[in-house]
Amino acid sequence: MDKSENRKRSIEEFGKFGLITHLTRNVKTINKSTINGIGDDSAVIDSGKNLTLVSTDLLLEGIHFNLIYTPLKHLGYKAVIRAISDICAMNGTPGQVMIALGISSKFNVEQVEDLYEGIRLACKKYEVDLAGGDITSSLTGMTIGVTAVGTVEKKNLVKRDGARANDLICVTGDFGASYMGLQLLERERKLFVKEKVTQPDLSGFEYVIGRQLKPEIPVSTLTELRKEEIRPTSMIDVTDGLASDLLHICRLSATGCRIFYSKVPIDYETTRLAEEFNIDPMIPALNGGEDYEMLFTIPLELVEKIKMIETVKVIGHMTPSGSGNYIVGDDGSEVEISAQGWKE
Amino acid sequence: MDKSENRKRSIEEFGKFGLITHLTRNVKTINKSTINGIGDDSAVIDSGKNLTLVSTDLLLEGIHFNLIYTPLKHLGYKAVIRAISDICAMNGTPGQVMIALGISSKFNVEQVEDLYEGIRLACKKYEVDLAGGDITSSLTGMTIGVTAVGTVEKKNLVKRDGARANDLICVTGDFGASYMGLQLLERERKLFVKEKVTQPDLSGFEYVIGRQLKPEIPVSTLTELRKEEIRPTSMIDVTDGLASDLLHICRLSATGCRIFYSKVPIDYETTRLAEEFNIDPMIPALNGGEDYEMLFTIPLELVEKIKMIETVKVIGHMTPSGSGNYIVGDDGSEVEISAQGWKE
Repeated sequence: MDKSENRKRSIEEFGKFGLITHLTRNVKTINKSTINGIGDDSAVIDSGKNLTLVSTDLLLEGIHFNLIYTPLKHLGYKAVIRAISDICAMNGTPGQVMIALGISSKFNVEQVEDLYEGIRLACKKYEVDLAGGDITSSLTGMTIGVTAVGTVEKKNLVKRDGARANDLICVTGDFGASYMGLQLLERERKLFVKEKVTQPDLSGFEYVIGRQLKPEIPVSTLTELRKEEIRPTSMIDVTDGLASDLLHICRLSATGCRIFYSKVPIDYETTRLAEEFNIDPMIPALNGGEDYEMLFTIPLELVEKIKMIETVKVIGHMTPSGSGNYIVGDDGSEVEISAQGWKE
Repeated sequence: MDKSENRKRSIEEFGKFGLITHLTRNVKTINKSTINGIGDDSAVIDSGKNLTLVSTDLLLEGIHFNLIYTPLKHLGYKAVIRAISDICAMNGTPGQVMIALGISSKFNVEQVEDLYEGIRLACKKYEVDLAGGDITSSLTGMTIGVTAVGTVEKKNLVKRDGARANDLICVTGDFGASYMGLQLLERERKLFVKEKVTQPDLSGFEYVIGRQLKPEIPVSTLTELRKEEIRPTSMIDVTDGLASDLLHICRLSATGCRIFYSKVPIDYETTRLAEEFNIDPMIPALNGGEDYEMLFTIPLELVEKIKMIETVKVIGHMTPSGSGNYIVGDDGSEVEISAQGWKE
């Protein structure tokens, strides 16, 4: 690259995904066992009969979690969810997680035990083994590195780049709840700090709070899809936000997309709370993130079959490359879906 | 556990290894594919014909590296070395690495490129693929999560717990150089800060500096051992320090050990620099760490065979459980090898 430019480029200029693409542009595969490299939910490694999936994540205090309103047990639970969700998003079955923990001296053993209690609970619920890890001292708060390992039969692997024009865009669950849950927790924290209100008023919003603090992965739906022999052409777990994650699939599959405003599932609590906050509920639904739902595409001919699965909603369809990415309003108006920049 | 105690226990009380053991004491394996869980260099996962090895590490700015004297290219290189070294220590062949990077806005794109240049160089040299990863924003400096994946034939797997009494204790390379290299860099940094000496005087100490900034893994020796059908009974890569890592093997294998002062390989530069710093060179050799050499045990009957491998030195032997862990001086005096506490 041309280092003669005097101006150093800031990371914001590139944006997170641009930077990854830029940094890994010259990476060539050496080993035959490396099937899927950079850009998908997990690395895909040929291990003989099946494929081994490996995903890795970094959770940083103050960026990915705030210990003021995230109990450590929930944080441990969520760290596991985050990692195994990437394995599920490739249609794989998670088998193991490993935790690399960085903690400063402000934490005591009981707190780390709480964190591990959450890790254990998630492992138990999703039938994965805590298979290793490390603890290291940190100068600045808590850092959690989570690695998940899983397997998938070769024929069942679903990547991000397999969507085709006319494929149906499907989702599990609903969107925006986790983000609104976080807004509520943040509002109550501010009240606590400013006005010494010690009892946060969270009643009536148990669902959105739960979605923020203890997310779950729609594994039963994924199992049902396999049982019904509905193999998605592409899939991603919604962690960055429905819009951003849909654009990932479009970019990697070289398609456009059209989703319908009225079809995006939003829970009643999310809508009610968004109104309280004076925002359009579609904003958290599209850009909130941390939903841990699955976004996937299926061939158009499976339209009748997918209707039988109650936990899946069709929200739109893929379009040919170059025809843009749009959300269509009830009045037929089209708004371009824009990518989020550097966002966590 | 009894939470009625008013006193919260500090992490230092437990020590790093005690804390991991404590936190994972109730972890039971759920999946049949999980072979080796917590406590070894890598997680071991049965993937059919071969075993899949996965290791994960967290490198934190200010703890594991100081950007004042670690060029980012070297840091990237070292991050890969650190991760794949864990795969090599189980007698496996590394195939893939994944990098999860946390960076604050103080870094620019060119710096991250330098880091990735080092990552790429190490990947190329050790024939591993950069198979994935993520970049995330950080509030406080740089955090690097590195995950390595490798394979090993079932019959070739070497764990930490297989050493038996009378086994020979063997090492590759020499010890303490990396630590002394760090001391030298630190001394020059202080001179720079206090006395504005801008040209650090590192001449004559290229070896120790190189060992600190660009460590290598003794893969050719490991290949030779396999070729000569010398299968270690236990193995570990020396990152915490020769003493600490030997004690890991003794603890997990339920043996004692005796190593000989005069047999521990120390490079001339390390000795010379230790003298300049007025310390016994055996201290960095035993407790310095970051040597990235292999420490392993072999059955006594292979004594003649191991002598043929020039890059391996026998430094002692394992003893029955309960007979203690000692270093034997030239005069026959015995000093107990003590464990390091919370140490990175």
